[in-house]
Amino acid sequence: MLKTIVLPVALIGVFAGAHADEGQWQPHQLPQLTSELKRIGIAIPAAKLADLAQHPMSAIVSLGGCSASFVSDAGLVVTNHHCAYGAVQRNSTPAHNYIADGFLAKNRAAELPGGPNTLVYVTDKLENVSARVLRGLDAGMSGRARHEEVESRVKALIAECETDKMYRCSVPSFHRGMEYYRIRQMLIRDVRLVYAPSDKIGNFGGDVDNYEWPRHTGDYAFLRAYVGKDGRPAEPSPDNVPYHSKHFLVVSAEGLANGDPILLAGYPGRTSRYKLPAEIRAARDVGFPAKVAELRADLDTIAAASAGDAALDVRYASVVKSLHNGLKKTQGLLDGFARKDIAAVKDGQDAALRAWLAGHPRAGVSPTLLADLDAVIAADMALGDEEFAWSVATNSDLLKSARTVYRLALEREKADAQRESGYQQRDLSFIKARLARLEQSYATPVDQARFAAGLQRYAALPAKTHPAGLDALLPAPDAVAALYPRTQLGDTAKRLAGVEQDAAALAKSDDAFLQLAVKLHPVALALEERRKEVDGNLERVIPQYMRAVIAWKQSQGKPVYPDANSTLRVTYGTVAPYSPRDGISKGPFTTVEGIVAKHTGKEPFIVPAALIEAVKAKRYGVFLDPALGTVPVNFLSSADTTGGNSGSAVMNKRGELVGLNFDSTYESITKDWYFDRDITRAIHLDIRYMLWVMKEVDHADALLKEMRIKYPRK
Amino acid sequence: MLKTIVLPVALIGVFAGAHADEGQWQPHQLPQLTSELKRIGIAIPAAKLADLAQHPMSAIVSLGGCSASFVSDAGLVVTNHHCAYGAVQRNSTPAHNYIADGFLAKNRAAELPGGPNTLVYVTDKLENVSARVLRGLDAGMSGRARHEEVESRVKALIAECETDKMYRCSVPSFHRGMEYYRIRQMLIRDVRLVYAPSDKIGNFGGDVDNYEWPRHTGDYAFLRAYVGKDGRPAEPSPDNVPYHSKHFLVVSAEGLANGDPILLAGYPGRTSRYKLPAEIRAARDVGFPAKVAELRADLDTIAAASAGDAALDVRYASVVKSLHNGLKKTQGLLDGFARKDIAAVKDGQDAALRAWLAGHPRAGVSPTLLADLDAVIAADMALGDEEFAWSVATNSDLLKSARTVYRLALEREKADAQRESGYQQRDLSFIKARLARLEQSYATPVDQARFAAGLQRYAALPAKTHPAGLDALLPAPDAVAALYPRTQLGDTAKRLAGVEQDAAALAKSDDAFLQLAVKLHPVALALEERRKEVDGNLERVIPQYMRAVIAWKQSQGKPVYPDANSTLRVTYGTVAPYSPRDGISKGPFTTVEGIVAKHTGKEPFIVPAALIEAVKAKRYGVFLDPALGTVPVNFLSSADTTGGNSGSAVMNKRGELVGLNFDSTYESITKDWYFDRDITRAIHLDIRYMLWVMKEVDHADALLKEMRIKYPRK
Repeated sequence: MLKTIVLPVALIGVFAGAHADEGQWQPHQLPQLTSELKRIGIAIPAAKLADLAQHPMSAIVSLGGCSASFVSDAGLVVTNHHCAYGAVQRNSTPAHNYIADGFLAKNRAAELPGGPNTLVYVTDKLENVSARVLRGLDAGMSGRARHEEVESRVKALIAECETDKMYRCSVPSFHRGMEYYRIRQMLIRDVRLVYAPSDKIGNFGGDVDNYEWPRHTGDYAFLRAYVGKDGRPAEPSPDNVPYHSKHFLVVSAEGLANGDPILLAGYPGRTSRYKLPAEIRAARDVGFPAKVAELRADLDTIAAASAGDAALDVRYASVVKSLHNGLKKTQGLLDGFARKDIAAVKDGQDAALRAWLAGHPRAGVSPTLLADLDAVIAADMALGDEEFAWSVATNSDLLKSARTVYRLALEREKADAQRESGYQQRDLSFIKARLARLEQSYATPVDQARFAAGLQRYAALPAKTHPAGLDALLPAPDAVAALYPRTQLGDTAKRLAGVEQDAAALAKSDDAFLQLAVKLHPVALALEERRKEVDGNLERVIPQYMRAVIAWKQSQGKPVYPDANSTLRVTYGTVAPYSPRDGISKGPFTTVEGIVAKHTGKEPFIVPAALIEAVKAKRYGVFLDPALGTVPVNFLSSADTTGGNSGSAVMNKRGELVGLNFDSTYESITKDWYFDRDITRAIHLDIRYMLWVMKEVDHADALLKEMRIKYPRK
Repeated sequence: MLKTIVLPVALIGVFAGAHADEGQWQPHQLPQLTSELKRIGIAIPAAKLADLAQHPMSAIVSLGGCSASFVSDAGLVVTNHHCAYGAVQRNSTPAHNYIADGFLAKNRAAELPGGPNTLVYVTDKLENVSARVLRGLDAGMSGRARHEEVESRVKALIAECETDKMYRCSVPSFHRGMEYYRIRQMLIRDVRLVYAPSDKIGNFGGDVDNYEWPRHTGDYAFLRAYVGKDGRPAEPSPDNVPYHSKHFLVVSAEGLANGDPILLAGYPGRTSRYKLPAEIRAARDVGFPAKVAELRADLDTIAAASAGDAALDVRYASVVKSLHNGLKKTQGLLDGFARKDIAAVKDGQDAALRAWLAGHPRAGVSPTLLADLDAVIAADMALGDEEFAWSVATNSDLLKSARTVYRLALEREKADAQRESGYQQRDLSFIKARLARLEQSYATPVDQARFAAGLQRYAALPAKTHPAGLDALLPAPDAVAALYPRTQLGDTAKRLAGVEQDAAALAKSDDAFLQLAVKLHPVALALEERRKEVDGNLERVIPQYMRAVIAWKQSQGKPVYPDANSTLRVTYGTVAPYSPRDGISKGPFTTVEGIVAKHTGKEPFIVPAALIEAVKAKRYGVFLDPALGTVPVNFLSSADTTGGNSGSAVMNKRGELVGLNFDSTYESITKDWYFDRDITRAIHLDIRYMLWVMKEVDHADALLKEMRIKYPRK
């Protein structure tokens, strides 16, 4: 029976308008966009792009948090310099400073181990498992029961998929719980560093230029995937052989011009394009301002605690960089919200949807949707405030490590299938890698200062956001110092040893941080359980709204893409400048002359002398762009990207590699919430610059030979 | 007899390359540029543009320091807001604040007197008098004798021309003494304020946006020229009638697009395009850095002396604005010199000239040119250092007034024709206006602080730059305060009364500043006489070099324009954006939406509410630019301008008024020394914005009716 639904403005929420450039599409959706792809000039048939087993999608890989692509049949992978940074860093010593000097393996034997955090995921299979996840869920279930049932089915689907240990599987939700896909990825654990330019090229401009244009960063590096002699993934070993990557991208040095179409494929992490206006307003007015203040305070604390100690500065450099990045991104979102009233824009779109729905009654939307949405969103926001307060109160890496160790022990008491996701057997190597990695970015005086300062800020937060029971369990800020002499978790071996202990033993430990973790556990668990209840309710209610949006868009012949969720996506657009304000236009290209002009000789604006010399001598060779009269460095496109798209292949209309995605402009930051095509631009490395540096500066001749490069006709 | 000349690099010096856009042409030169004008699309025959008696040149007038044009047959003049600022300011009272609120005369009777400094000069005749000035000068004369002889001939030529008192005549030199033209201008002394928008429009962006782009300034105002009933200029009187301006510019609201040609006519003040490399290097390395330091120090002194006293702030506002402008301009020159090694560029051009001269021996160039040039330039620079030191030591408006009064009295002892130029009978009204105007920008505590601080800085300058005998005559910095109770020159009536006294009386005065002026006079005179010697030598030597440059350019079919000297010039170019740095493009247009975006509600970024309302309601009317989709505000062109071009008519290819010149971009500042066509852009008001404000914001309907406006066809 068909029911009529009329959704009032406040209810309908937001959705992404479907026009050119916007959209992080699941590959299988591309055939629905055939005419749009043709219109901008993409020559590859949409059906071919939709096929993960075919070139070019089969050449696109994930590094777990970054994107990359194969560029030879011997497992050679190209990605961003900042995505390979960990591998460069762990191999660097005072004697061999590969960060400052760059690294180029003389031959394959000289390629360096990337370490346990350098991984390559090759997506090889994708199934819609929505029916198996959602079938027969009782509408009357509590949120928590529903969430746990879904989790349990997801775990079973994963376990079923991972019987062959060469695969890593996941079952992410799409459209906030409307659909589920099972994704199977071959996980390659032996990944080696092949070539990274000096960070004077790979990170030119540093934090100053982060999110900025004009940009002149050579943000590229090469890795190589190794497997066992049987061709299957294997633990790192000198006996391993390069992975045979059947499909790889041809590199085109023919270049792009303003207005040319591009395709971009990678693993975007997270977007919030379908948030409801109430969620946008809460983030804009409460959540993000609080986050900005918190990040600023934390950065100030780190700066004060490490002041005057260069060793501490180095140790916390990557933490500070990451906090700065988060701060700039969050501030960028606030600036974007101030510039454009996105909530109001979405209100307007809602009105249109509501009008359409009034005239097109559809089935399957609950008549209580209004009340349900209001309630779950209010609950989500209130809980979010408590979770934020919790994170402020527990701002210590040692405490986080202790909590991980204790939680793992508790979960290990259950059968593997019953354990909480993230604490199963399959997660163990990742947990260990994380605990080990802390070694590079931990120092007691700084951790102690951050923990104490966080507790002070927590005390100043509204009482209603303090999780029940927490205040009595927390140490006083001035009692924090006394904890550190009574813990051994600052020692990496001790942290890793904790992973082997059972919960009872840990509970009896006299380690101050393990004791605190045990004490706080019930509060953490209560928050988790409430989160499950809220998420379960969101997962039941939001998909009803998404179905209405999709039906409406479908009636206009417009497909709807899901929010990013770290799965493989394709986006497309054109090489395009933009106007950040009246009377100014930025991009689409920068040039090597711009590097020389920016070079001050002071960090982060130093380039190697060889590069300056090559520019001054105009040794452009085949990489000269005829329109620019020089070698392009970075360019802008209108493609739809977000964090996780770092290292994504930028392809021309024939699917040839012409660039690497690595950043967006500052004005684009709001795109995670609202895609404004007038100002949203992704920043790409022009592959001609990479090839030019390889030839003229770093003399990476063997790699230039290994790749299949299409040079422009003379 | 033909002599061979070979000019070495160091000698030949600089010259402007003759390519499109560059060139502040004397109108009579335009027929030599016929093909260039055609190429960019100018439809008016060059011969017509060359004729000062014909439209459009006959409509172009000078305000003395600014440019303007007639836009009706009843003497209506349009110029920049900042050029009419004095007239607005002198009519403003706390009750009628025409600066903040704008002024629009209800009818002609309500038009307000512009005061003695608001003048209109209509150029009506121009003769080449080089022969009469230069004929028979003895090559063996001393520099000073030569200079005085030239001055004496010039004065005679002026006197001959000014027998009819309605004219003001001048005999400026062109090409640094190579040619002299006698220019006859009708001087209209009764000029009234007709309409000025609020400075929230006319000076939107204020000092912050000065020399900047993007720009959103409505820098326009209207004056009207009045004459006696006989049609001849007359002293200001209610009986005067509007001047019948036979020729006036038609105003075109049809607008321009990117790439369209423009003509620009006005009175550029001073350029240094033909300086020798040694002169450039001295300015860059010594002169300008010293000037920047001096301006900064003087600004600091004023700020400290007026701190906390709002009345002093207001009184020195225009002085501070002018010093700031000088500082920004000088700093801009230094930044430009740092960006581009102009001296080296000129060295290169010299080499080309030298090569040509070697193959094309010409007559008339002295074989001692090298030695002569070296000597006179060295002498010029050394004397310049002393003149700079003198100006630092005498940084008091009261001292300057005293010196003017005393000098005038000394000169008056001679027959008028023998008096120093600037102190003749014909100069008297200007001297009085200057002495009177000080009333608006003088305050004892500030003048005293500036004088004392200047003396302190003078003491720190290298001893060799101290003019002979000066140190003994100057007061000690801490003795300055005692001078002010002993002077009456702070009183305007007393300053003006001084003009009537003879030198003997002044010499006996017990006024402290008159006493100081008398005491310093011999040192000032010695500097002046040395200046005449140096200038006379420069005037003899430099023209030989200019003749070589002109002959060379002529051989390439390229005419050579003279440096700007406040005489009527025509330049042309195209509407064009520019790239201030790699990856960014600026202009060519800004729009009314940009004003709303810049409006912060805080000075200098406040616009009237009525303007914001009109933009938000999109009441663009006929002024909408179809390509921009809105009303343009300012635009950039490649035309060649400098100070003095403020208010210049910007005309389309048919000679119709489409804009007003009012500024240049920061990167363009170096153009006074070297025109770099890639980055040199003048900033113009789009006349559509002016008309739109007149219609939608200020309702200046009668003026819109009085002008002949061509509206776009629908």
